[in-house]
Amino acid sequence: MRYFMTFSYDGSNFSGYQKQIKERTIQGEIEKALTKINGEISVSIHASGRTDAGVHAYNQKAHFDLDKELDLSKLKYSLNSLLPDDIYVRGITTVADDFHARFNVKAKEYIYKINLDGYNPIERNYVYQLNKRLDIPEMERALKYLEGKHNFKSFTKPNEEKDDYVRTIIQAKLERDPKNVNRVTISLLGDGFLRYMVRNIVGLLIEVGEGKVKSSDVIDIIAKEDRTASGICAPACGLYLNDVYY
Amino acid sequence: MRYFMTFSYDGSNFSGYQKQIKERTIQGEIEKALTKINGEISVSIHASGRTDAGVHAYNQKAHFDLDKELDLSKLKYSLNSLLPDDIYVRGITTVADDFHARFNVKAKEYIYKINLDGYNPIERNYVYQLNKRLDIPEMERALKYLEGKHNFKSFTKPNEEKDDYVRTIIQAKLERDPKNVNRVTISLLGDGFLRYMVRNIVGLLIEVGEGKVKSSDVIDIIAKEDRTASGICAPACGLYLNDVYY
Repeated sequence: MRYFMTFSYDGSNFSGYQKQIKERTIQGEIEKALTKINGEISVSIHASGRTDAGVHAYNQKAHFDLDKELDLSKLKYSLNSLLPDDIYVRGITTVADDFHARFNVKAKEYIYKINLDGYNPIERNYVYQLNKRLDIPEMERALKYLEGKHNFKSFTKPNEEKDDYVRTIIQAKLERDPKNVNRVTISLLGDGFLRYMVRNIVGLLIEVGEGKVKSSDVIDIIAKEDRTASGICAPACGLYLNDVYY
Repeated sequence: MRYFMTFSYDGSNFSGYQKQIKERTIQGEIEKALTKINGEISVSIHASGRTDAGVHAYNQKAHFDLDKELDLSKLKYSLNSLLPDDIYVRGITTVADDFHARFNVKAKEYIYKINLDGYNPIERNYVYQLNKRLDIPEMERALKYLEGKHNFKSFTKPNEEKDDYVRTIIQAKLERDPKNVNRVTISLLGDGFLRYMVRNIVGLLIEVGEGKVKSSDVIDIIAKEDRTASGICAPACGLYLNDVYY
């Protein structure tokens, strides 16, 4: 029986999503809890993708297999009782045996939160405390150049061996909180994202907002297919995997 | 020279505001930093009042004395460089020698944040994850009974020796986030608050919202002047000292 779950986590105190020996990880904690529920017979989970250390998720999704057919609300309840308080399973359903939480992904949405004014210690792990005024209309123009099908090699980890750097950004937008204009949220909806791609895009956008890079330069930066052509990598704390679509 | 500062903190990792030997406290961290700036000559700060372990502050205020007249923006910068990342000094001014950050308080505003729907691990230390639907209009009626000048002995720590339990709640209100109706913020503006008073009021309001207590019962509960007449104490995580007025 294949199960499919949606879960949230606060990435602040994890060494990322992916299981690592001796490190506290989201995958590690969930597999430990599921293995306990499964009578200590090891259970592996397959998420839509990894997230790095410090990155949060509102709606991460994963599948796993269990021999038994369990009551879904009891399974959710047991799992949440066993999980630490920085991970929460929002829902579990059953799916077809050939459904795969990573291979079947159609689109993902990441959001990135920035505070332009001052430093707020209460949200230091959840919103990037940039404390700089940015040229928002120029950033919005840059976002438009990022939309569409492009080779995003300039926005991923240097030296990473990969054949395919082509991804489609379906929508790239920036929103200001109507109650607080210094709170900016950048959203990227895409058919897939390379490692560090969102944080590198946000880093470049910040440089555009600061006037260090022109929005129209984004076209050249994409075309160079070279990480050194792009800008800084924005810190993990502002980044959230918001949703995954199948 | 008397200095007056406004500061924010994330109370999650502190044993409260007030200095205690061997415990990490907000007062302890700030005095340590100021003492360093003052050439290791001890500096004491006097805040508007204490906050308990886990309680946050957006605009806590305090005064302190230094022999020297320092440049205010440099002082703010040095202090923030020395302070841990969960405390931030928002501003410093100089004040008259007879100004006192506690005795001169005219009013304080506390806010309390509750999530009525589900459990969000990302905000578990910042919003009380109640996960219950509440009768909001009934809670709003209860809030109206709390406004005004009352003896609030029913809402403070039992057995605490105190002569004067009379305080005035200038305004008590409840707001729902227009973008998320399950996010409720209770605000209490008063001329002063007894220990645990806000959390005990919020605890009672939750019981009103659950239908365990009628809003009109609040009149009797106040009149009893007895802590056992009131309800539960809401957890510290949802509570913020929002502002202090002089």
